[in-house]
Amino acid sequence: MGLIGESRRVVVIGTGLIGTSVALALSERGDQVWLADRDPVSVRLAAELGAGVPLAEKPGDPGESADIAVLAVPPAAVAATLLDAQKRDLARVYTDVASVKARPLREAAELGCDLTCFVAGHPLAGRERSGPAAARADLFLGRPWALCPTPESAPSAVEAVRALAEACGAQIAVVDAEEHDRAVALVSHGPHVTAAAVAARLEAAPEAALGLAGQGVRDVTRIAAGDPGLWIGILSANAEPVADVIDEVAADLAATAAALRAGGGDAVTDLLRRGGSGRSRLPGKHGDRAGAYAVVAVLIPDRPGELALLFQAAGVAGVNIEDVTIEHSPGRPVGVVELSVRPAAAQRLADELRARGWSVPG
Amino acid sequence: MGLIGESRRVVVIGTGLIGTSVALALSERGDQVWLADRDPVSVRLAAELGAGVPLAEKPGDPGESADIAVLAVPPAAVAATLLDAQKRDLARVYTDVASVKARPLREAAELGCDLTCFVAGHPLAGRERSGPAAARADLFLGRPWALCPTPESAPSAVEAVRALAEACGAQIAVVDAEEHDRAVALVSHGPHVTAAAVAARLEAAPEAALGLAGQGVRDVTRIAAGDPGLWIGILSANAEPVADVIDEVAADLAATAAALRAGGGDAVTDLLRRGGSGRSRLPGKHGDRAGAYAVVAVLIPDRPGELALLFQAAGVAGVNIEDVTIEHSPGRPVGVVELSVRPAAAQRLADELRARGWSVPG
Repeated sequence: MGLIGESRRVVVIGTGLIGTSVALALSERGDQVWLADRDPVSVRLAAELGAGVPLAEKPGDPGESADIAVLAVPPAAVAATLLDAQKRDLARVYTDVASVKARPLREAAELGCDLTCFVAGHPLAGRERSGPAAARADLFLGRPWALCPTPESAPSAVEAVRALAEACGAQIAVVDAEEHDRAVALVSHGPHVTAAAVAARLEAAPEAALGLAGQGVRDVTRIAAGDPGLWIGILSANAEPVADVIDEVAADLAATAAALRAGGGDAVTDLLRRGGSGRSRLPGKHGDRAGAYAVVAVLIPDRPGELALLFQAAGVAGVNIEDVTIEHSPGRPVGVVELSVRPAAAQRLADELRARGWSVPG
Repeated sequence: MGLIGESRRVVVIGTGLIGTSVALALSERGDQVWLADRDPVSVRLAAELGAGVPLAEKPGDPGESADIAVLAVPPAAVAATLLDAQKRDLARVYTDVASVKARPLREAAELGCDLTCFVAGHPLAGRERSGPAAARADLFLGRPWALCPTPESAPSAVEAVRALAEACGAQIAVVDAEEHDRAVALVSHGPHVTAAAVAARLEAAPEAALGLAGQGVRDVTRIAAGDPGLWIGILSANAEPVADVIDEVAADLAATAAALRAGGGDAVTDLLRRGGSGRSRLPGKHGDRAGAYAVVAVLIPDRPGELALLFQAAGVAGVNIEDVTIEHSPGRPVGVVELSVRPAAAQRLADELRARGWSVPG
């Protein structure tokens, strides 16, 4: 178990979006996956999608434990589900995927679960849509997957859970449970509540105002479309850290409103500056800061083959392209391609492209 | 002027993102466009992109007025720019594209501008990036474009501005200036400040917390990456309506924080419900570009030259790549490149890539 190329025997309890996505990723890789959910329709759909076989149809010795069980249930259900699974001796190692870690761990300890073979986990991936139909095998590709082992966790159990998360294509981040909960309050739960508060303003908005909505408000409020039942469970289980974050957001907004009414722009400028600065700290591609790359813009004729010539030139210059954006309008003969490269390589790339006759402004 | 098929003579003052995009859209349609900006580098780049001809190089009678002048300058500069343009008799009709309408109109009246031939406008389209290089002729396709005529506006001027916005592909929304400003506070300016307040929390966040950031917080904070200089001008010009919106958001957040701390879920459930309900009122996208393309995902080794080979293959298949995103993660040897192409070309591209040994899932 856990060795590359070896097939795991996995039970997934909870065939919602995350559980089914884990099951799909592992099945695709060749693991044997059994599926359980209190909703039989959900299990059947997940199985039909190729995620695995219903646990009820598991062949062979019914008493034989799987290598690992993944509890893909809401935070409030983790401890009881773990206790039940351990009583049935369902697997040798257990993990969960809930968005909150400290409270379920406390509850599991209180219920008397065996914590030596349980390693709490949280893949940072999701969609607004829920349920098995929204699942995808590549949901975790390149995404962070937090693991929160405790001093009780057996090293072999930690390794097994780590190998499972890596088999799903995720990047492992080992972190203390309390630290995890404060972190997700900051980067997930707090933003979720704030998005809901912005979206709530639209409930009574005049029709004409909604007609003026652009992409910005759609992006800000996108996660507010998430399942309220799921989210009330997450927020309640992480109440204090979330309350701390949204209190700070509220204080900034109230101060900004007061500054705007007073006609004093300084507090407003300060908030916008802090916002830009905070935003730029979000890791970009390669886990680097968004600002870690230099951008080389090139004018490019809009016809097949031109991009190949452009990337050929970059290859000749020995420059790795980290990101590309293409800007052009239907029907226009010329577009702009922006190539993101390591800053040290930008000048070399620009020189090589100009030497080959490309128009590189600036 | 304003008749379909007839060529307009247009002056665009301000060759930033919006001005250059208007100029590109009109040039593409066959209008004659002259460009002016206080930054000569910006005018040159816009001209090179095909947006028009620098106003300084306008041939013929220098005293001859254009049909229409588009003032693509910040809200605080609209009135003075209008007065100056009218003194120079630059055009017969004037419009602007600023994000705030009531205060510039008041200022223009105070300066003694001729308001019979000025019709204030606001295309609801934008990007986080600014400047002429980010401009695109299809920026306004299917987007709302607010027009705020006053009782003084000559019907012929209103018609001319409406025809210009329609020529850019926009959907016209005629609305009172004060009503416009309250609407954009709700669907644009308020969300912008709120996004900044969420992003500001990240400024002092632990590195480990940022490592757990997913797509949700990126979406919520995306617009916080906008130019603070531009935004302070917009928010100051629309201070009261924006303050009203963000005060309400702050009050909802403070109440939710208190409810979370008290362990009472009702206020939290209520906010999530109102958020979902408000979000669902946003109209479906018009002219959604994303949906117009099919996406072909390809696994790609992370080294120089690989993208060139990929685009070569696309060129051989005669497929034009409309957009590219590259997803890869720290330390992983393989990334995912998503190629956006016309739906009819997707299968051909996938076949060609597979025939050349690329891994094209699905």
